[in-house]
Amino acid sequence: MKERLILVTNDDGYDSKGIRAAIDVARRFGRVVAVAPETVQSGMSQAITMYNPLYLRHVSHDEQVDVYAFSGTPVDCVKMAFDYLMRGRRIDLVISGINHGSNSAVNVLYSGTMGAAIEGSFYGCPAVGLSLTDHSADADFTAAVLYGERVVRSVLEGPEELPLCLNVNVPTGRPEEIRGIRTCRQNRGFWREEFFRHEDPRGREYFWLTGEFVNWEPDAEDTDEWALAHKYVSVVPIQTDMTDYRLLEKLRGRFGE
Amino acid sequence: MKERLILVTNDDGYDSKGIRAAIDVARRFGRVVAVAPETVQSGMSQAITMYNPLYLRHVSHDEQVDVYAFSGTPVDCVKMAFDYLMRGRRIDLVISGINHGSNSAVNVLYSGTMGAAIEGSFYGCPAVGLSLTDHSADADFTAAVLYGERVVRSVLEGPEELPLCLNVNVPTGRPEEIRGIRTCRQNRGFWREEFFRHEDPRGREYFWLTGEFVNWEPDAEDTDEWALAHKYVSVVPIQTDMTDYRLLEKLRGRFGE
Repeated sequence: MKERLILVTNDDGYDSKGIRAAIDVARRFGRVVAVAPETVQSGMSQAITMYNPLYLRHVSHDEQVDVYAFSGTPVDCVKMAFDYLMRGRRIDLVISGINHGSNSAVNVLYSGTMGAAIEGSFYGCPAVGLSLTDHSADADFTAAVLYGERVVRSVLEGPEELPLCLNVNVPTGRPEEIRGIRTCRQNRGFWREEFFRHEDPRGREYFWLTGEFVNWEPDAEDTDEWALAHKYVSVVPIQTDMTDYRLLEKLRGRFGE
Repeated sequence: MKERLILVTNDDGYDSKGIRAAIDVARRFGRVVAVAPETVQSGMSQAITMYNPLYLRHVSHDEQVDVYAFSGTPVDCVKMAFDYLMRGRRIDLVISGINHGSNSAVNVLYSGTMGAAIEGSFYGCPAVGLSLTDHSADADFTAAVLYGERVVRSVLEGPEELPLCLNVNVPTGRPEEIRGIRTCRQNRGFWREEFFRHEDPRGREYFWLTGEFVNWEPDAEDTDEWALAHKYVSVVPIQTDMTDYRLLEKLRGRFGE
């Protein structure tokens, strides 16, 4: 069998602890090419760079892993990998992460990690976004690697090959504290922000964005938030048709068609 | 009746021609507060600014319109409006646009215009993203203003108030060339990129991202792409649950639950 080729990317940057954990997962399954942002790109969603040139830098090479740093967004990195660096070659899997911080619930929409995973799936490739609910730079990725490997193995070696995109979140804690994996739906809720106002030395006011997640359905047991709160790994399969079909029916004729 | 309060934002920046067209639509329905990016934020998706302070600047004031420039993303602008500038006040509608360029099909995911509209809808407020399929800085917004007004009137004065988010795209052309409005679903397709490679004066290679949209279903008459190609205004109602429910059923038990 031909060796698998796995693309790794993330939004915390090419030298984060989390991407080393993702590469650690990926190399168990094949040859790894990592193309990741030069700088932190958290919260970059599915952003693309339209009006700036992008710089590519080959950071390191060994017999199983190449690492590139790219000056764009996580989605730019995926595009660079598929449409330039590995153009014409089959990529078997995209792993995005492991993110320092949760991407459950509505965070999937703001997340650069998930933006990159979604972009990978657009190329017809299975894509797994991996996140750990721990923002700290020195987070313990032991459990995330263990469960990441389990999910990736199931995707690559499961009963049917699916062109899927998965949003996988792992709760903090040692592996033995985690109760297993739950396949879930995206929790409903949103972020209510608070802006911290300050003045800079020149008297101009500036703001820091900071917020709190409001969970609209804390008791729903089939959501990713519930799973994480109860020490399960959450797996949400992702689709990208934003059409509201229920509303589509309601709106027929509304605009004078 | 209390005067309506309408938030206008965009991704092309506070002084683009398109936002002036959006303000022109909005002022027909109430008092307008525009909070828009200082600089071009095209392709910024639903990105938020996590690691930089943000500067707010009051650009202009007249009896009906206030304009603020904010140094963040389109979504940051919406959050600033709801959670700081107009905290505690009822905002009746968000208009995002009018974008210089189409946001049909999968572009809804990359679009800063639609990122802002979606964010507005998270606050329980109806939100309309308006885009014109013309990228040029001096695009003719006459038809977009006309149809934008028609859609907004229907949202604000229609038979039922809906907490909805609409992705409205207007084809280029004079109003008399446009055949009406169609309520559509999001077209399936994606962008295949080509990277233009150059060298800077110091010999470092850099890339420009450029691409071509590949339409996977050019003949489907119920999509936004079809509507625009046939000179209709497309209206796609937007939802934000990314869960793939069909796949969710398929995956049950897959990960050893």
